[in-house]
Parts: sequence; structure tokens; C-alpha cells
Amino acid sequence: MAAELQGWHVVAARHQETIESKIPQAWQLSENLLNNVAPMALPRQSGILSDWELSITESKAVDILAELRHGRVKAVDVTRAFCKRAAIAQQATNCVAEILFEEALDRAAELDKYMETHGRPKGPLHGLPISVKEHIHMQGTKATCALMAWADHTSSKDALIVRVLREQGAVFHVKTTNPQTLMAIETDSNLFGRTVNPHNPSLTCGGSSGGEGALIAMGGSVIGIGTDIGGSIRVPSAFCGIHGLKPSVARLPHSGLSGLQDGMQNIVGAVGPMARCAEDLDLFCSAALANRPWDHEPSLIELPWKTSIEIPPRLTIGVIWNDGVVHPHPPVSRALKNTVAALRGQGHRVVDWNTDLHRQLVDAANEAYFLDGGKEYRDILAEGLEPPVPIIEWLLETNAGRPHTVEETWKLNAKIERLRTLYAEQWNDIKIDAIICPVSASVASVHNESRYWGYTSIWNVLDFPAVVMPVGKVEESDTWDEFPPASLTPLTSADDSYRQLFENRQGASRYQHAPVAIQIVGRRLQEERILRIARSIERCISEPCAPSGSPLEVKGANDLEPASIQFAGSPSFWNSVAEFEDSVSVAA
Amino acid sequence: MAAELQGWHVVAARHQETIESKIPQAWQLSENLLNNVAPMALPRQSGILSDWELSITESKAVDILAELRHGRVKAVDVTRAFCKRAAIAQQATNCVAEILFEEALDRAAELDKYMETHGRPKGPLHGLPISVKEHIHMQGTKATCALMAWADHTSSKDALIVRVLREQGAVFHVKTTNPQTLMAIETDSNLFGRTVNPHNPSLTCGGSSGGEGALIAMGGSVIGIGTDIGGSIRVPSAFCGIHGLKPSVARLPHSGLSGLQDGMQNIVGAVGPMARCAEDLDLFCSAALANRPWDHEPSLIELPWKTSIEIPPRLTIGVIWNDGVVHPHPPVSRALKNTVAALRGQGHRVVDWNTDLHRQLVDAANEAYFLDGGKEYRDILAEGLEPPVPIIEWLLETNAGRPHTVEETWKLNAKIERLRTLYAEQWNDIKIDAIICPVSASVASVHNESRYWGYTSIWNVLDFPAVVMPVGKVEESDTWDEFPPASLTPLTSADDSYRQLFENRQGASRYQHAPVAIQIVGRRLQEERILRIARSIERCISEPCAPSGSPLEVKGANDLEPASIQFAGSPSFWNSVAEFEDSVSVAA
Repeated sequence: MAAELQGWHVVAARHQETIESKIPQAWQLSENLLNNVAPMALPRQSGILSDWELSITESKAVDILAELRHGRVKAVDVTRAFCKRAAIAQQATNCVAEILFEEALDRAAELDKYMETHGRPKGPLHGLPISVKEHIHMQGTKATCALMAWADHTSSKDALIVRVLREQGAVFHVKTTNPQTLMAIETDSNLFGRTVNPHNPSLTCGGSSGGEGALIAMGGSVIGIGTDIGGSIRVPSAFCGIHGLKPSVARLPHSGLSGLQDGMQNIVGAVGPMARCAEDLDLFCSAALANRPWDHEPSLIELPWKTSIEIPPRLTIGVIWNDGVVHPHPPVSRALKNTVAALRGQGHRVVDWNTDLHRQLVDAANEAYFLDGGKEYRDILAEGLEPPVPIIEWLLETNAGRPHTVEETWKLNAKIERLRTLYAEQWNDIKIDAIICPVSASVASVHNESRYWGYTSIWNVLDFPAVVMPVGKVEESDTWDEFPPASLTPLTSADDSYRQLFENRQGASRYQHAPVAIQIVGRRLQEERILRIARSIERCISEPCAPSGSPLEVKGANDLEPASIQFAGSPSFWNSVAEFEDSVSVAA
Repeated sequence: MAAELQGWHVVAARHQETIESKIPQAWQLSENLLNNVAPMALPRQSGILSDWELSITESKAVDILAELRHGRVKAVDVTRAFCKRAAIAQQATNCVAEILFEEALDRAAELDKYMETHGRPKGPLHGLPISVKEHIHMQGTKATCALMAWADHTSSKDALIVRVLREQGAVFHVKTTNPQTLMAIETDSNLFGRTVNPHNPSLTCGGSSGGEGALIAMGGSVIGIGTDIGGSIRVPSAFCGIHGLKPSVARLPHSGLSGLQDGMQNIVGAVGPMARCAEDLDLFCSAALANRPWDHEPSLIELPWKTSIEIPPRLTIGVIWNDGVVHPHPPVSRALKNTVAALRGQGHRVVDWNTDLHRQLVDAANEAYFLDGGKEYRDILAEGLEPPVPIIEWLLETNAGRPHTVEETWKLNAKIERLRTLYAEQWNDIKIDAIICPVSASVASVHNESRYWGYTSIWNVLDFPAVVMPVGKVEESDTWDEFPPASLTPLTSADDSYRQLFENRQGASRYQHAPVAIQIVGRRLQEERILRIARSIERCISEPCAPSGSPLEVKGANDLEPASIQFAGSPSFWNSVAEFEDSVSVAA
């Protein structure tokens, strides 16, 4: 095959071969299975995992750790189970950038030996497999940002977050795909190809932490490390139906990432966790801050993770129905409407939140991303002798204007500071506990149709922590008739194009099986508080149908399926995995 | 007089007339007094203040507040005492930019009435006069940065720090001078003229918070609000023999300042207190953070002030004898040497601190100050039809290079981040509690001779909190023979020029009466800890001769005089105010 290829195609093919070569024969899926079974159903239908392996890979990290800590399971067995499932996820969605199964199993064996010798775990994360977004440096792996120019760069040391988690006993079994340049909310590149949504491969998994989204949704990992400068943790979490946290800047270790625009500080990204429940997001943050990382990364703030947070029994929540820029599609509006109804039903107060400042904030984010007019992006693509993928081509054409002068960047900073202050005073005036809002105007987009990330990027500009959690799936009844936009005329040209993507009656079928999520936003540096509120909201939504047990625990036929919103006429709260076992092929 | 003046001279003359017109006849000093009595002796020799007024203006803020809180003194009486002394300080040193005596006395009367009516103080700062650096916005006053172009700008609202302190009962009686553009460690401008050092008017008071330095040293204020982006709190504190704290960025309210380069974030300044003891610096910070200012200034970190801080009984201190760029003059070296001896005498561990990174850090600061090549500075001077004062002319000629591109500013940011990380690892390796080092290579410079601020600016680049405290005065025995530089050949051209300023035998006489200070530096955001350590070091220095009472309380014949270092042969720990009462004129 390679003989016919030229230029970057050779590098891409070599990469695919490397991936394939590292998946053991026994974990490889037949063409028949891949063509006829939906990705989400593959782990069970493939027969590759034992019942125990299926069960452990569908457990929460906190529960797996308890089993490991008490010696009831071995780290190698847990690791092998996740490696198997990651191999399946990779074959179904192309979510893996680098396979580290051997290294992970060796490391797990060492940890088991440690436990045997010392009678105690290595650390609080003893034996827990964690997946890592590709551009995060990890010694001996690649951190290319899906750029051909960097395809051969091997990291010489760990990013601080990797080092910190490793010290506490984590096992790293895969690195996951991110898009070319990282600057997209879909995950496509010449180097890795496209990562698809495991719920419906004709849809994107989101980006830029898209590999994590697909992998965790399929149970190939229980916690993943993502990064987010405009929605890159939250969009794939929402599109893939998992949980994600974008913390405030300087809260979690962020040093040691590969990326363009090194030293750009006008808008700054954050490392954060992606997982299948809010409890595991909390676990990740607590572990990340356990060993005084601020002593090693000077920009971090010395703020230990608070383990007990009080929130009022009756919350006041601001709801954003639309941001005045792009109106959300009907499934998103329904999710919000039902969430608000559930909150009110439990006695919480919900108020409409004014979004007058949003358009300016969205513009400020877009301006901050390309202060050099996109020069560094274009140069690195030229250096790698590769074209931009369609979504990056669109981005550079529409968002990267002319280079700024230094004075213009100061003006932008001052403008952002002014907007932040106005937003703070708005919050002071209304005194809410949190905002709930869409994560995106759309559920998972059809490939190459993602154009708007203002619902996530504004929280980067404001530096507010934001949690994403799944609340259901697209339903046939999601129509514009049922959930009409606030105004008949489009708010903006972006709004106009988004409206056209979702036809009134047939729109829902375009996004079949796509998860629907909400975003819960708190004030700067109040990560613990917003996670606590998110869990309270989750409980509130699930309570009417929650099975026995702790009200914070979300249980069902398949923990991997996002909780569906409870509303009148819904026959069941949880979509059963059986839905997938019966489904016909939806492979791309 | 004004008839003969033209251009900016008219504005300057009008300003001087306004100042003069607001000093009551009874508080005006005769030419005879001004010409024949040293500034520091004027408050006592002028006969303008009663004994009680002299006493209250020489007390600590914490003690004054206790008197006010218990109704033992009236706010108007306290305020009047400080107004009198500020009037004297202004006439002796030209340290006041705006007189607010009437407003302050009205406000104090209101507070007294409040106390009478409610039987309780308005807030923790009830009735305490506080002085404010000129460029800090305060409703109805001017914040010109000593620029002719802004000479008529009146502030429409309070800076957050002013608002916060006002809410707690503070009284603002004067605004204090700062230099043209703010970007100097001397205080000179066409608008306000030159502010001189009250210990020796042929020397500078330092800058840019130079008015505060002179005013507080003379007892015209007990606490002042300064700002510091390269040494602007610490240099005048050292030069005038008072205490100052430059906190980390984003610790204390910083919004609402007038200044050039609005939105520049490559190096950021901080608001901090200047006072006559470390206890009052602590009081200021505690008050500044009492009412959740981070809810109003989004860049602030939610870090309440810690009132109980534990430090080890035996400290490990790193000492910087010289920074490898400019060697300190003999009085500064002596101060360090004696401090180290005192620390070791009390059982603390002192280690030499490696300064290999300092030159790069100093260069990074200097690069960050003029990313636009000084364009905004030149433009605003041109707009005001005024020439630069000598020290600004020198600065623009030597430090402001060509404008940076956006990419070059990113490279600078990345370089600073790398240096910060290296410095953090150095600190992790050696595990010290604090650094002690010079504040400046020199004590208060002769006017227009200040050329180097690397001993202070590097802590801005690193964003470490730094406390300055006085430890003595220049002595005749301060010679290069006694305190030779580490190398015979100059370290740099700046070092060469500084060496020439201090002649071996006659050098000390050039800087007669100038205070000598040390700087105590901690890790980022550990303001409480470094203040606690500073008080411990102060106690350690003073202990051998400290009078009875709390070992933390520094008492003597005159609290306004800086503590002198205890060393062999020193007849007394405190320089008595009598020294000044006998002194002949040293007026410029």
C-alpha cells in the first residue's frame, strides 16, 4: 500500500500501521462485526471481554480504586480489561493516537508487585488506567498536535499532570487523538484521520479532546486527561455523552503541553478531566492537587482541593436559553427546558439569565485565538507539507484576520477585563449559584459542520469553571415546532446557518442516537463548588426515577449510557444497552 | 508670576498654587524654619502640632485604631493631626499631589457622629487617615500619572482598593506624588516638580510611590497605598526608611488605576501598603481582603487573608550578596552582613543564594516594560506638550527599543515562564523559607542618578511577595575597603557606573542620613508568611537591645526612625530624633 503513497500520506499510513500492529490478534474485530454492529454495542457483542471485564470497565473510577486498594482485583487485570476495550474503541471510532498496552501492563504488574511486597497501594490512584490526550507530553511518546511537521517528535519528559498522576499510581494505556493544530471542535487530521462518534459514526465526536470523548464513552478508559481553550473538553464530552470539567486557568497542572502559540496569554487553556460521572471528575482534581504542584509550576495557584463544600439546599440557577448569537437546536432546548422543570420541581429557583454581554465575549475569544493572523498555523502546515483539513481551512479563512500590533493586543486584554468585570457585577446583582446553558448550539454535528463554539468559549474568556453532563439523547419529537427559536429572524449569519442544519421534522433523524448535554457554570476558581452543584442537579434530574441507593450514584442497565431527562411520557429513565444490541449498522 | 509662564509651566504653577491655597495659614512654615531645620525635625520644631498630635501621628495604625474603636479619641482629632503633619511634609519635601483636608475632616466628623449614634465603629478602619498615590482613582480627585496631557482629568469613581478601605471607615486626607509616566524610581515631573528625601533633600525619595515614602517617613500618614511594577513601593520605602509590601499580582485589589499601557499583561503591577511597621502592612492586607473584593475584580484570586501562620522556629534564609549585575554599595552590604550575623546569632540558618538566573530575569523585566518601543510614553508627552524629565528621557533613550511583534511578546512570555520554573526548582532544591537581599544597589540616590532596579524588578517578574524594612542608616565607616565588591572588575556597565557613584572614603558623606533597608522575599501568594517571617527577622535584629514589651513591637524614642542594625560598637539601637533636632539645615 505504502508504495503508492507520497508525502504526508506515507507518514499517515505508517502511523495507522503502527497502531494496528500494537493491537493483539485476539482483540481485533472482524469486518462483519465492524460493519454490522453499532460502536457502543461492540464491547459486549465482540466477545473479547469477559463479564468481569465488561463490568469493571463500566464501573466508576472511585469504585475500581476501592477494589484495587483492598487487593480484591489486580492492576494487570483491570489494565488488560481497559486495553481490550480501548482496542475495540479504536477500531470502531479511530480514537487512539498511540497504543501503550505493553507499557501499561508492565507498569500494572510492577504496581501489583508493590502491593504484594508492601501490603499497601503505591498511591491514591494505584493501578487506575488513565488515558491522555495526544498533545500532552509523556516521556517516550509523541505529542504532535496531529501536525505532520511534528510527526517524529518524541517527548523527553512528562507534563506535570502526567507526572503527578503517575506518582500516585496511575497507569497510562493510550494516548488519544486530537485534531490538526488542536484548534477545532471536531477531531480530524491528516496524521490520524478522523475520529467518529461512537453513538453515530456519521457525526463528529467533537474536539479537540475528541479521542477522549469517543474512548471514554465506549468504556475504553474511565478517566481521561483533556485540555480546553474554547470548548475542547466540553464539546466532545457533550457530543459523546460523558462528563467533563473545564477548570479555571491555573487551578490544575498545565505545564508540559505541546502546542502552537507558545507563550500566548491573551486567552489560556486548562487541563481538565473527562469521565463518566461527576464523582470521578472530583477524584481527578483531588489527585492532581495532592502533592503541591504549585511548587513546580509557578503559574498555578496554591489552592488545595476542598473536600467538603456546603451549598444551599435551595439553589438559585440562571438559565441561558440562547446566547443571542446562535439559537440552540430543538434537542438542546428540550434538555434545558426539562432540566429547568426538574429543578423547579425540587424547589430550586430558576431565573432567566441575561446574555447581553455574550456576543462581545464570543468575539473577544475569536479575536484572541489568532493574534498573529494565523501565521504560525499556516507556517507549521507548510513546514509539514500538508494541507489544512476542511475544518481548519474554514477556520483560517474565516477567523484568522490580519496580525495584531502589540497595542491592539493590549486593547483586547483591557476589553476582556472590562467584560469580565461587567459579568461579575451582573452575577453580584442577581446572586445566583450557577448558570445552566447549552454546551453547543447543536448536539454532535455531522462531520465538518461544526462552526460555532460560543457557548463554551465564553467561559474560557471569563475563566469560569464549567461542568458538562449528559441528560438524554436526541428524540424524534425534537422539532422546531415544539421548541421554537426566540425570534423568527436569525440572530446572526452563524445562527442562520445553524438553523438550516436542523430541519423542522427531519432534523432529529440527522442526529439519531446523539447524546444531549447541559453545561453548568460557576464563578472563577470555584471548581469544587460547581462540581458539588452539578451533582446536586444531576440528582435532582434523576431522582424521580432513581433506583435505590445513594441519590448521588447514577446507576442503570449500563453506566455508559447518559442519563435521560425525566419528563412526562418517558417510558424509562435509562436507555438500555439493548437498544444498541438490536441496532443495525450505522458505521460510516 | 503666571503671566510670564507659558505652556505646561502654567499648568504646573496652577497646581502649586492650588496646593498652597489648601494649606491653612496656621500650618504654613516660615522660610526660616524651612531653610534651617532638617525635614524630619520639622514636625516637632514647627510647633504646629500639640504633644498629643505628635504622639498620635507617631503611633502605629493598629494602636490608633484601638483608640478610635474604644472612643478614646475622635476621628476629627486624629485626622487633623495627620493633616497638619502632611502639610509640613508637603512644604519640606513636595510629596503631596492633592490636598483633601476639608473632605477628610468632614468625613471624620461623620464617622464620629456615626460612633456617637450607633455606639460602634463604622468598620475595622474607622477613622484611620490613609494616603493614596496619585494615579489611583478616587472620585472627584485627579489621577494624572503626573502627565500634562491628563492634568485636567478628574476621576469619576473610586479604584476598588479605595472603595474597599472607604467602606471600612478609612479617611483619605491626601493624594501623593508620583513621577511623570510612573515609570521611574525617583519622583520628578513637570506637573508636580520634584519630591525630595526627608532624611536628606539632596537625595531622591525614590519612586514611583515617592510621595508616599516621604510623607509616611515624616509622619504625615500612617499607611499609604502604593503600587509596584518594578520596585515602586519598595524603592521609596527603602530610600525613606519605612516598611513596604509588594504583594503577588492578583492578591490585593488592583482595578481602577490610571496609567499608560492599559491592558499590557506581560508584567503586571500590584497595589500594596507602605507603613512604619510590618504589623500595619498586615492590617492593610487584612482590611483589603475583608469584603470579598474578588467578587468585583475578576482577576483577583479568592484567597482570604490568613491571620494565623506558622513558621519554623529556626528559619533557613538564602542571602543575596549581589545579583551578578550591579554590586551594592558598602552601606547596603553592611546591612546585609549585620542582618546575617544577627540571624545566625539567633540560631537561624543562612545560606548563600545562587543568582545565576538574575541577569536574564532583569533583562526580561526591562524588555517587558517597553514592548511598544516606548511609543505610548512618547505620544502622551507630545500630547501634553511637555518634555520628558531627565530620568524619563534617559529611560526612553536606553531602555525602550524597537516595537515588538505579537510573536516576540509570546516568546518573552514563554521565556519568563521558563525562568520562573527554573527559579521554583532552585527553591525546591534548597528549601529555604525566604530570601534576604538588597532593595537597591544604593541607598537613596542623588537626584537623577537612579539607574538600576534589578533587585526589585526580578521579584515582579517572578511574582514573589517582597517586604522592605529599614535596618539602619548610612555610616561614615561604610567604605569599599570595609565592604569590598565580590570582584574587582565591574560585573556590567551598570555596575561600573554605580561603583563610580560611591567613592571609597567620601562615598558615605554623599548619602548622609540616608536610611538603609533590606528586602525579604517569599514564594508567590505567600504574603502572610513573608510578613510573619519579616517580623521574626525584625525581632531577631532588634532583640539584643529591644526594650521590654512584646518582642514584635518596635519601640523607641521615635517610632518614625528606622531600626538600626545591632552590631559591635553601636552605642544604641535607635537613632534618636534628637539627632535631627540638633542638625543643621540640609535643605536643597
